[in-house]
Amino acid sequence: MNPDAGPDSAPENTSAAEPAESAADATGSRPSGLSRRGLFGLVGAGAAGLVVGGAAGAAAGAAAASASSQRDAIYPFYGARQAGITTPAQDRLHFASYDMAAGAGRDDLIELLQDWTYAAARMTQGLEVTDGGAVGGSPLAPPADTGEALGLPAAGLTITFGFGPTLFSTDDGEDRFGIAAQRPQLLTRLPRFSGDSLRPELGGGDLCIQACADDPQVAVHAIRNLSRIAFGRASIRWSQLGFGRTSSTSTSQLTPRNLFGFKDGTANVKSEDAKLVDDQVFVGSTDSPAWLAGGSYLVTRKIRMIIETWDRTRLEEQERVIGRDKGEGAPLSGGTEFTEPDFEAETGAGTPAIDTDAHVRLAHPTVNKGASLLRRGYNFVDGNDELGRLDAGLFFMSYQRSPEQFIGIQRSLAADALNEYIKHVGSAIFAIPPGAREGSYVGAPLLA
Amino acid sequence: MNPDAGPDSAPENTSAAEPAESAADATGSRPSGLSRRGLFGLVGAGAAGLVVGGAAGAAAGAAAASASSQRDAIYPFYGARQAGITTPAQDRLHFASYDMAAGAGRDDLIELLQDWTYAAARMTQGLEVTDGGAVGGSPLAPPADTGEALGLPAAGLTITFGFGPTLFSTDDGEDRFGIAAQRPQLLTRLPRFSGDSLRPELGGGDLCIQACADDPQVAVHAIRNLSRIAFGRASIRWSQLGFGRTSSTSTSQLTPRNLFGFKDGTANVKSEDAKLVDDQVFVGSTDSPAWLAGGSYLVTRKIRMIIETWDRTRLEEQERVIGRDKGEGAPLSGGTEFTEPDFEAETGAGTPAIDTDAHVRLAHPTVNKGASLLRRGYNFVDGNDELGRLDAGLFFMSYQRSPEQFIGIQRSLAADALNEYIKHVGSAIFAIPPGAREGSYVGAPLLA
Repeated sequence: MNPDAGPDSAPENTSAAEPAESAADATGSRPSGLSRRGLFGLVGAGAAGLVVGGAAGAAAGAAAASASSQRDAIYPFYGARQAGITTPAQDRLHFASYDMAAGAGRDDLIELLQDWTYAAARMTQGLEVTDGGAVGGSPLAPPADTGEALGLPAAGLTITFGFGPTLFSTDDGEDRFGIAAQRPQLLTRLPRFSGDSLRPELGGGDLCIQACADDPQVAVHAIRNLSRIAFGRASIRWSQLGFGRTSSTSTSQLTPRNLFGFKDGTANVKSEDAKLVDDQVFVGSTDSPAWLAGGSYLVTRKIRMIIETWDRTRLEEQERVIGRDKGEGAPLSGGTEFTEPDFEAETGAGTPAIDTDAHVRLAHPTVNKGASLLRRGYNFVDGNDELGRLDAGLFFMSYQRSPEQFIGIQRSLAADALNEYIKHVGSAIFAIPPGAREGSYVGAPLLA
Repeated sequence: MNPDAGPDSAPENTSAAEPAESAADATGSRPSGLSRRGLFGLVGAGAAGLVVGGAAGAAAGAAAASASSQRDAIYPFYGARQAGITTPAQDRLHFASYDMAAGAGRDDLIELLQDWTYAAARMTQGLEVTDGGAVGGSPLAPPADTGEALGLPAAGLTITFGFGPTLFSTDDGEDRFGIAAQRPQLLTRLPRFSGDSLRPELGGGDLCIQACADDPQVAVHAIRNLSRIAFGRASIRWSQLGFGRTSSTSTSQLTPRNLFGFKDGTANVKSEDAKLVDDQVFVGSTDSPAWLAGGSYLVTRKIRMIIETWDRTRLEEQERVIGRDKGEGAPLSGGTEFTEPDFEAETGAGTPAIDTDAHVRLAHPTVNKGASLLRRGYNFVDGNDELGRLDAGLFFMSYQRSPEQFIGIQRSLAADALNEYIKHVGSAIFAIPPGAREGSYVGAPLLA
């Protein structure tokens, strides 16, 4: 990794690396431990005067970085771009949106991002969070790491941080962190879309963390420990667990199925297409603002599926709505899964083979001024509602160079035949800063 | 498998089998398709006169039973005992409790269990649900299978059915299904325990289904399709997703960690100990009632962990509360993880090495008249609460020959030091009938 490489030319941190000692070295450069506030999060408001440090209990963490299997990739944390964007989509998600505490200021934000950087750099390498002292810590202090991932491999964990519009100034215009002038012009609450049924408590947020891994316990462990470290400075506003990825971000991955039973994300931006990735996913070095070069924009939409209605729809109607066949995933204009849809094709009867309001047509770059999205969504089931129906759907996430890509496509989808079967209930947008260089922290180009 | 073998001598269906044609044959014996009511569930109340069957679309399911890897076991569905009890605990859970519809009668219950048996026997073999016609069904009908598991292997899926106390008669004494006289005497709502904080909507139920798999999408697919088939006859009362097993049920499995960060279930009943399994887990042939021989009792407890408080407790206190060390899982009386705890051991100061109110002491068979449980719990995170804290904990499940085993142990735990950090919010109990023989259905000994 060359920390001086420009954001446009440097690849994202997606190559699998060994869990070697060098990983531990890499995490030790700037933040050699948590800040006093981060340590405070570990003990809470009620505790004081604890002895922190000491050698006892060091054995506790010995198993942390052991036992790797084929799916147990370890991705570098530091780099020109944050990991977790073009990284081959892992199987599981824990996503959390945070609000800064009332009264927190610029220094608190910087310190929090430094602490988060320190802890994320360790956890993504399969290492325990420490307080800067011995692994395992003192028996007289609360453990710095909550422990449920002890003995588990890194499981491909990536931790990706983002900044919401309200971080730059509140709706009242208050510039809490002295960064209002740095707000990307396009980073504003998304416009209202046709059919939106948004619940404020399921959207928005000052900050976000996306934790993806091939083991849900590893993703949950990451969000839990980062939330704990944030104690007194930021707390979770909303969160989401996802159990099955609904997109491939690499040509090496099989296309998964969403809860409508269809293959999803066949035409997704893939990391191997470097030109498309540079063009559509990452903010360029000549884009504005400069601090966001090498970063991206993330849109999240919690989309509840009305699966009972869908399940009672006949197969040919399901396929008409999507514009693909259900078994193979081929466009209804013919071919196989990866055949480009032919929107001019007609059936014998002279009607379009792919309906005018089919999802695949309205989401396609050809009807959206060439815009595409790198999708990274997950299936979710949040229990059931009072009528005994599964509360299930798609937690949609897309990364794009500009929010206008998402907005344009979402407006096209106003006519989508699929709308009868879905309801958007949560919405958020975040600016995703570039990756941190070793010795620095995520967000430094904005705040340093 | 010998369907005539007695329930005491026959092993549970836990040997991994090939996804061979014989599996498909096995599922075709009695229920060669869904009942008319089961088919009705596939189309819903609004649809009528659909053409069901036909050859088109048969290709859709072709990939279903392909692609097996090392962890992709396939367990037989039919057998003297239900699978999913001593089966090596899979990584993921989707559990659902159902209430029968108002007005449903004995014939509805029988038909539902026959439909569920038919569909479960297929899904556990990695096969699609069909309506009895061609795989994939007609384009003019809703697909019989919802499709999100197409192309996925069986992933070790087991589906385990149970009967709640209210199935045998309501609290008002109404004998809806003509089985009140068959109610196991011990199958009654659990007594109130010290510290219970139960919410009725998170417990109870006429019927339950436990779906365990190594892929959450496979477990979710099973519950979703069985719920759909139940349409008009039964609906979900409550449900629970679990993302990480917290017990081993086989000596071949590593001990996992719960969200307190401790290894859990070290002393669990393991399937390899046939004598203990027969003695403690399964109802014997001389027990009462006779129809339950080869079955078991399942207790579920949704236990919310107060993880923020726990996380601020110092390491030595955490270890004192559990009675084991956090890193290795060894009892505080010394040794390694699998060393038996020595409750007589004292520290130099003359105090017990394992505290008198340590969890490991109070849960141990030696203080519970030799009773043990086969635990099969899962970690859960159900998002976060309004204070920004993770809504997380343990979905405890235990199988035992008699509910009195659980009741006795839970009463011992009234003094458990761990109680300061947990809250029981959901509770249910179910009689688990023996396995179904090929050509029959789950529950036939009770209802046939």
